Amino acid sequence: MKINDPEQLYELERRLEDHDPEIEELSELQEQLKHVRLKDIIAMIERTDVTNGAKILRLLSPERSAVVFDVLDPAHQADMVTALGDEAVVGFFDALGAEDRVALLDELPPEVAARLMHELDEDDQRVTNVVLGYEKGTVGRTMSPEVPLVTPEMTVKEVVDNLRENVDSLETIYTVPVTDAHRTLVGIVSLRRLFQSKANQPVSEVMREAQYAYASDEAEDTARWFLSSNLLALPVVDNEHHLVGIFTYDEAHDIVEEADSEDTARLGASESLKRPYLSTPVQALVKSRIVWLLVLAVSAILTVQVLGIFEDTLEKAVVLSLFIPLLTGTGGNTGNQAATTVTRALALNDVRNRDVAKVAWREMRVGMLLGAVLGSLGFVLAGLVFGQSVGIVIGLTLLLVCTMAATVGGVMPIIAKTIGADPAVFSNPFISTFCDATGLIIYFFIAKAVLGI
Amino acid sequence: MKINDPEQLYELERRLEDHDPEIEELSELQEQLKHVRLKDIIAMIERTDVTNGAKILRLLSPERSAVVFDVLDPAHQADMVTALGDEAVVGFFDALGAEDRVALLDELPPEVAARLMHELDEDDQRVTNVVLGYEKGTVGRTMSPEVPLVTPEMTVKEVVDNLRENVDSLETIYTVPVTDAHRTLVGIVSLRRLFQSKANQPVSEVMREAQYAYASDEAEDTARWFLSSNLLALPVVDNEHHLVGIFTYDEAHDIVEEADSEDTARLGASESLKRPYLSTPVQALVKSRIVWLLVLAVSAILTVQVLGIFEDTLEKAVVLSLFIPLLTGTGGNTGNQAATTVTRALALNDVRNRDVAKVAWREMRVGMLLGAVLGSLGFVLAGLVFGQSVGIVIGLTLLLVCTMAATVGGVMPIIAKTIGADPAVFSNPFISTFCDATGLIIYFFIAKAVLGI
Repeated sequence: MKINDPEQLYELERRLEDHDPEIEELSELQEQLKHVRLKDIIAMIERTDVTNGAKILRLLSPERSAVVFDVLDPAHQADMVTALGDEAVVGFFDALGAEDRVALLDELPPEVAARLMHELDEDDQRVTNVVLGYEKGTVGRTMSPEVPLVTPEMTVKEVVDNLRENVDSLETIYTVPVTDAHRTLVGIVSLRRLFQSKANQPVSEVMREAQYAYASDEAEDTARWFLSSNLLALPVVDNEHHLVGIFTYDEAHDIVEEADSEDTARLGASESLKRPYLSTPVQALVKSRIVWLLVLAVSAILTVQVLGIFEDTLEKAVVLSLFIPLLTGTGGNTGNQAATTVTRALALNDVRNRDVAKVAWREMRVGMLLGAVLGSLGFVLAGLVFGQSVGIVIGLTLLLVCTMAATVGGVMPIIAKTIGADPAVFSNPFISTFCDATGLIIYFFIAKAVLGI
Repeated sequence: MKINDPEQLYELERRLEDHDPEIEELSELQEQLKHVRLKDIIAMIERTDVTNGAKILRLLSPERSAVVFDVLDPAHQADMVTALGDEAVVGFFDALGAEDRVALLDELPPEVAARLMHELDEDDQRVTNVVLGYEKGTVGRTMSPEVPLVTPEMTVKEVVDNLRENVDSLETIYTVPVTDAHRTLVGIVSLRRLFQSKANQPVSEVMREAQYAYASDEAEDTARWFLSSNLLALPVVDNEHHLVGIFTYDEAHDIVEEADSEDTARLGASESLKRPYLSTPVQALVKSRIVWLLVLAVSAILTVQVLGIFEDTLEKAVVLSLFIPLLTGTGGNTGNQAATTVTRALALNDVRNRDVAKVAWREMRVGMLLGAVLGSLGFVLAGLVFGQSVGIVIGLTLLLVCTMAATVGGVMPIIAKTIGADPAVFSNPFISTFCDATGLIIYFFIAKAVLGI
């Protein structure tokens, strides 16, 4: 009988969080965990600290704990290795695919990594080393080298028999790359298509043109178009077009999810945690945020200086200071809207660097339209309460600030990408600070001109 | 010979953007497009307006254009239906899977949807209607009802033969749900596992416990855990545990990608475009942003009022106004960091509603630590330039504002989710406005106390 009831699961989770349980209690918990679905156990581990997660992992059977370990983020796996000790994880490490093993090795201290590699059998060491040979962030680093050997002359039946024979050592049997005698990729055939064909047909008649990636291609870009193409796996070739491995959709998904988490974090001015929130210690949270916060606070000193320049104007009309947060806030929001939209479009490859002029022209028009609406509203409201000239100042400032903010917000992420920086980093917070300072200058120039001070 | 060179592709793309080409030129372009990889054609269509995209689609062979159409976002597909006319898309519509057909129908005007449905053959109408029968946002609405009939008594060979026979009508042959005589789900077996087993073994001996979803389950949540579990497909059952369909990883990926795009857009205070950026008209961009901008501008009037209350204080010490953008900006950034992190954690299901106290306690400590660092810096810098008492005011304000902002930023998305609102909507911009107003009150109270004004 499975435990499915959320209240029961929560009670169990709470009891597992007890840091110093009796031995009898532990064996009772172990018994109960047998009836909990794997997906719920994974969720429990992802919602508690590492010490506790390691305790839960120890209470599971070797098979179940290996499955759970496989699903965790590489950084989280590395935390578990530290918590459990390397002997305990040798089995887990062995059960991982070559590409997942490499992702974990990248997160471990070198001496632990070396010890774990040492425990692998020769064959596993060999495939792991193939993947390790490619640069981080490339498709080669995330592929599996375990591919079948299928040539165009083989019949459908021969291929299916070959797959059946080698099924245990292959990463996937559902997508079959076809290569010639020199291991050059010449086509692809799905097991589905083999099932639709006659047993004695040669593969050359049923295979199709292969979509593929180069081992040196950027992993994130490749993963995105691969996933949107609804393929299950993508053959990977070297520069001579020789088949070197296969890139599967689940690796692609992990890469895209990690990249999206990183983009989201950076749009919010922090670094990605790379592990579940509740499994991250408070110091690590502080570390992921403090640098950005300091950089932004220091650059905000610019706004203090801008206001310092206009201190006379402020003394003459204190009313102007009342609108500062409203104007800088609106400029920041408009800039963020544009920057967020364009950053996402860049990530999805819907916009390229060379589209910068197109984007600027679009965003300028969008900003003007937004500014016209907000400016009219600002003119009426501020005019009613503080008099017509203040209304004109606020209305005009909103029009100009929105136009400027949308244009800058749209263009900045593209410039960042062009110079090789992360578009998300140059997005929201930076644009806010920039728009704050520029917006204030616009504001005081308009105010001085209209109010004649 | 494939056209792979980016410059050549760009030249072709530019020529396709000519809105009024000669007939000879069109047939030359058509010839060239035959040599362009599908992935590059898709990218071209996703980087141009709909009229132009429709023109490119018309230049492709029926097979290629159907593949391209299948990959587009549903909202983008609907734009294409309008641009091409419904007769032209009947073939595309027919080629879609039932779940993709329903996603497109949801984006079309009812009369166009009805006409397209009318053109389907009886069998396709039936499966489409099954999917249409489930509520939007549920797993049922995104599954395919085309599943095999496999019982535990069948032998491995019988199952493989059955799959081979029905391969054309099945959504997938790689993941095989096993049901009893009443269509109750009793297990699952992968084609891979069938390949590893003996031909005369009964399925009951090789099948495993099935992971599954209910047709009424929320699609986004299910898609997330399903994708992280590295499965290819998930059987879907009704409340009586009868098999009703199968949920495939590519649908799950589309759902998660759309949800992530929506979250990202809302964190940046706009609505998701649901189609590629450059295929979205300028008016649609304005529409996706204006509502949020107005709501935020109107709520920012709060800050004008707060400052109005302290106008006397400001008149007595204009120096205080210089720090307004710095303090509100820092508060906003700290709040955004916390809100972005927690919103992402909620989306990934790493945090639940009942974790609200845990999150508040974590974020309060994080905020205090961040505030202590920034406050010390603020105390020293402001103290050096404007004297010790201003330094104390700035330092203390930063400490309190950061603590408040991180706590509020962490808790707000959870409260939003608890009351059934989108956490991303209640995140960054709202928190900025809230922190602006609260931060200013804190600032002026401290200033009045320390400076004695």
